[in-house]
Amino acid sequence: MTTSRPRVAFGMQDGLRERLLTPAALARLAAVADVREEVWTGGAPPADTDVLVTGWGCPPLDATALDAMPSLRAVVHCAGSVKHHVTDAAWRRGVEVSSATAANALPVAEYTLAVVLLAGKAVLEVAEEFRRTRAPVDWSTRFPGIGNVGKRVGIVGASTIGRRVVELLRPFDVEVVVADPYLDDAAATALGVTRVELDELVATSDVVSLHAPDLPETRHLLDRRRLASMRTGATLVNTARGALVDTEALTEVVLAGRISAVLDVTEPEPLPAGSPLWDHPRVLLTPHVAGSLGTELTRLGEVAVAELERLAGGQPFAHPVRREELDRRA
Amino acid sequence: MTTSRPRVAFGMQDGLRERLLTPAALARLAAVADVREEVWTGGAPPADTDVLVTGWGCPPLDATALDAMPSLRAVVHCAGSVKHHVTDAAWRRGVEVSSATAANALPVAEYTLAVVLLAGKAVLEVAEEFRRTRAPVDWSTRFPGIGNVGKRVGIVGASTIGRRVVELLRPFDVEVVVADPYLDDAAATALGVTRVELDELVATSDVVSLHAPDLPETRHLLDRRRLASMRTGATLVNTARGALVDTEALTEVVLAGRISAVLDVTEPEPLPAGSPLWDHPRVLLTPHVAGSLGTELTRLGEVAVAELERLAGGQPFAHPVRREELDRRA
Repeated sequence: MTTSRPRVAFGMQDGLRERLLTPAALARLAAVADVREEVWTGGAPPADTDVLVTGWGCPPLDATALDAMPSLRAVVHCAGSVKHHVTDAAWRRGVEVSSATAANALPVAEYTLAVVLLAGKAVLEVAEEFRRTRAPVDWSTRFPGIGNVGKRVGIVGASTIGRRVVELLRPFDVEVVVADPYLDDAAATALGVTRVELDELVATSDVVSLHAPDLPETRHLLDRRRLASMRTGATLVNTARGALVDTEALTEVVLAGRISAVLDVTEPEPLPAGSPLWDHPRVLLTPHVAGSLGTELTRLGEVAVAELERLAGGQPFAHPVRREELDRRA
Repeated sequence: MTTSRPRVAFGMQDGLRERLLTPAALARLAAVADVREEVWTGGAPPADTDVLVTGWGCPPLDATALDAMPSLRAVVHCAGSVKHHVTDAAWRRGVEVSSATAANALPVAEYTLAVVLLAGKAVLEVAEEFRRTRAPVDWSTRFPGIGNVGKRVGIVGASTIGRRVVELLRPFDVEVVVADPYLDDAAATALGVTRVELDELVATSDVVSLHAPDLPETRHLLDRRRLASMRTGATLVNTARGALVDTEALTEVVLAGRISAVLDVTEPEPLPAGSPLWDHPRVLLTPHVAGSLGTELTRLGEVAVAELERLAGGQPFAHPVRREELDRRA
């Protein structure tokens, strides 16, 4: 791309741009691009746009929108998945796409790391029993196998987030296994993990953490059979998508006292008000907050600005998205 | 020390040795030392002991005990502080001391890392409100400043544990500041942190995490004045010793809705059954489980075995404890 000073517009939900782009980031952007003030949230898109900087809530780039932006050459997305707005029509027109997937993966991986380490210490279980008894107990006897040494952590999906979790777990004395149909043994060795089949991962891990995309073939990846196979005392962590887990089967195995769960996403989301998972002491339910939020949004904006700087300097995107990868990605 | 095949005995509470030393570790020990079967838990210590491998509950090595072990040359401690059993009398006799302080620091630092990362996402607060409302909320608006980017984490005490927490926080986009009267600017730079005074640390950090020893001069280090100076929405983490915090003042500032707290230790411990901290949604109370527990004990045993191997090979201890450091250590 040779545009030396691209005309940049924004497409995202109202009020988001100010959270993604600090004044300093906007100033960097204005140094390399002609930046339009208004934000496209629907209706007719801004004409004379070379690059659209997108975020959550961007209207789909359908044929009508694309016709209205004949000079559109690139979409720079300030979040993870581009599937909701980068349509087949946009790909067919050869629009280049960049995404802040890697930066967006960081907070999810951080949340996962935190809850994996607490699961190793059975913190949900111990805290609940301590609150109930208000007395010292020999916790090692009460929870045999407690402790983060030698625990097996099963990562379902060698996605950007899954790989970051693997990296973040390196300083700890845990064994990390990964299941991913697209991960071969050489790639697993390069990651420093053992590749196992999903059934084995689920049945043998102390923590099972989901980092797979929501695709038709991953719906209820954790189905009744696999959930029933989990080790007693194990913890299921879902920071990916609710549809990956059969909620009814999960509820049964949790209520049976067999496993604990940390759920940042659920199906449905939020759970029905009557779900027993809300008040279960061995369930930590958070409202889809593991991903980029608050101060973490500025990191996404910085990635977008850096991509615009590359583009203005005639360099290729550092974080390109390729259409052919999307079948297996979020 | 030239003992080529030392006579080794154990001094610790009943049942602990089997949790510290796996059969493999015991076999390694037996390869370099004459290992006595019985464990000294009180009364007359085992005579003909060259090296005492100690753990929690070891009786004090007072003059009587030392007189009964005239050949005692070294104490290898399978935990952190040696103050409870290595007496002045033992130091005066020139007994060499080693401690698994570094290995014992790991789980405490891991627990701290986990709760620091969750505090950045306001997980206690968000989970409580989500459970109450059972509805989606714009969490960024509800909790301004949420997110782990740009947060200031204040580490009180550049102890073994405090330094490990600093290391573990390196992959994250947080600012780490440390307060420690024995840390100079050069040492802070080497650690990659900013040194600040304790008052400034407490008043400006989003998370204040205590890693100082329990000494007369650190009693109520977090007193009413400092607790009142904490930022609204900040989190206090105490995995060190309950005496570092004025519990009554902490309770007031928590009940006022000003700060959150993650407390693995308290004064008294456990808290009185009527303490409002037990059921407060912005308090996570755990029963002194951050330290080595369960599977983590085997790591301490392995350090002890490695020290015995060094000793048998004529090498100095890798983890010596020096008497002159004890005034400022746990």
